[in-house]
Amino acid sequence: MRLATLRNGTPDGALAVVSGDGHRYLSTAAVAPTLQAALDDWRRVEGPLRRLAVAVESGEGVPLDDRALVAPLPRAWQWLDGSAFDAHGRLMTRLFGLQAKQADRPLMYQGLSHQFLGPCDDVPLPRESDDIDFEGEFGVVTDAVPMGVSSSQAAAHIVLVVIVNDWSLRALAREEMKTGFGWVQAKPACSLGPYAITPDALGTGWDRHRAQLRLRVEVNGARFGDPHGGEMSVGFDELIAHAAATRTLCAGTIVGSGTVSNDDYLTTGSSCIAERRAIELLEHGAATTPFLRFGDRVRISAIDRSGRSPLGAIDQRVVNSRATDVSAAEGAV
Amino acid sequence: MRLATLRNGTPDGALAVVSGDGHRYLSTAAVAPTLQAALDDWRRVEGPLRRLAVAVESGEGVPLDDRALVAPLPRAWQWLDGSAFDAHGRLMTRLFGLQAKQADRPLMYQGLSHQFLGPCDDVPLPRESDDIDFEGEFGVVTDAVPMGVSSSQAAAHIVLVVIVNDWSLRALAREEMKTGFGWVQAKPACSLGPYAITPDALGTGWDRHRAQLRLRVEVNGARFGDPHGGEMSVGFDELIAHAAATRTLCAGTIVGSGTVSNDDYLTTGSSCIAERRAIELLEHGAATTPFLRFGDRVRISAIDRSGRSPLGAIDQRVVNSRATDVSAAEGAV
Repeated sequence: MRLATLRNGTPDGALAVVSGDGHRYLSTAAVAPTLQAALDDWRRVEGPLRRLAVAVESGEGVPLDDRALVAPLPRAWQWLDGSAFDAHGRLMTRLFGLQAKQADRPLMYQGLSHQFLGPCDDVPLPRESDDIDFEGEFGVVTDAVPMGVSSSQAAAHIVLVVIVNDWSLRALAREEMKTGFGWVQAKPACSLGPYAITPDALGTGWDRHRAQLRLRVEVNGARFGDPHGGEMSVGFDELIAHAAATRTLCAGTIVGSGTVSNDDYLTTGSSCIAERRAIELLEHGAATTPFLRFGDRVRISAIDRSGRSPLGAIDQRVVNSRATDVSAAEGAV
Repeated sequence: MRLATLRNGTPDGALAVVSGDGHRYLSTAAVAPTLQAALDDWRRVEGPLRRLAVAVESGEGVPLDDRALVAPLPRAWQWLDGSAFDAHGRLMTRLFGLQAKQADRPLMYQGLSHQFLGPCDDVPLPRESDDIDFEGEFGVVTDAVPMGVSSSQAAAHIVLVVIVNDWSLRALAREEMKTGFGWVQAKPACSLGPYAITPDALGTGWDRHRAQLRLRVEVNGARFGDPHGGEMSVGFDELIAHAAATRTLCAGTIVGSGTVSNDDYLTTGSSCIAERRAIELLEHGAATTPFLRFGDRVRISAIDRSGRSPLGAIDQRVVNSRATDVSAAEGAV
């Protein structure tokens, strides 16, 4: 089942079930008006939503204009981002000189969740000198998770799979990481892909609680990387159990994989600039790939074995928030 | 104006205006059903709410049972906690051996906000061996803040003042801090005091964007400390500007002061156990105050010059989540 959210002038938008080819949708208003409402009551609404999905697959519904889609969850109560690709962690540790990874526990931080940018929205940021970077990731959306679940119990709480661009400001990240407090300024609003899909709908693209898909990243139309999602050192089940050790997770919590990265990074490329710069430094003694400039475009999609893109694409342009937002510009010195 | 939220079986409760003596309230249903709804539309609803406040102060309204109160915001889209009391920072740095503070920027992390415990709720935690601690803090609730505001602009976005208990699990905090990612497991749900008050209603208790009140902390009925809120090295205006440097803040964002602490800590005492243990270590060579056990009570209130407690009291008991929550107990190994 493939879900998406249509722009309707409200903060949470209108939930829709979308056909596999992405051409048609059916409103779910009679079952659940928003994705958050559906997740709050998932056990009751999953059946009716799946019946709508069968209907749209059989030809019902109306034409879908991709530009009408916002993020599946335009806001969420909680965004917890892991760092489960150890190849990325090792490279970043060498770049930043911090010994981040603890042997016995996943890495995770809590980030901004009151706003997720839609797949085609511009990305407003204040300064190129903050070293603007992207991070291509997979994410899962959970229903309500009790405190203290085991990883085997946690697996049943994975409701939907999404792709994420975890925008990062590297010049600020280095400073904030030294404090031990995690990132605030270095992590502005993330972006989500257009579709949130139940794991079963990914077929062989979902196994061992990991997305078995390549994450294809393009910058200004050129390939940047296409690392595989299967190389997570811990699965989403373990990330959820880690997150829920001392808290309940509310329905609609989004848990991220961290930057997708593979051991054979020289072949697969990277899904963030900082990692490519670390590789350049290791291989050639100097980092040459620049961070993003205003006007640059980043496209992220997840590709299955058949070359299809079941989670859709995030395709955005970075813009100067001070040029586009009068109130923000007034606040800037 | 003093606002509170009544338990009504919904996630956000029912907003009420409360009299200065805390004895009576008036429902705000005709103006805004919840505090989040009021904050989303603050410019329009502030006037009508203040008229209700005048009415309740003149004797209108119905008797208030404190036990009916939940947190003013039982959930919020964003909780950003600073660490603006440098005395606390210096002591914790000596205890943990981390050089956290950067000279030119406030410390801040993003924490769990989908659940704020009410002022009298039990605090369910899984293990005493996690080193259960409290952190007494002041907090402010904002309306919508644009990206890039200056601190002078930020001041106008301070809508309400609250007290906070930022529950902390110190054994986990030490490990998580080393990663640079900030805290997830070490920071379970916080608690809020019963009242959210406009700064003007605090009179001399609010000045220079800081709460000019003592934060009185008692553990199992005994004084633990009563440091003064005026010693923040940066005010809430600067904390908000820091938070909004690369993001918008949504209405209902809660910004925390960090643990209240004074330079003359030997006189004022502390508002968390970890700090008292650091002082014991410095003064006597060994930390002797134990962390909390299940059944222990922590009471936090803010006292003005007249000995009144305008923000009410948080008075809670720590309990074993695995003994009180069947689903959580099932998940525990």
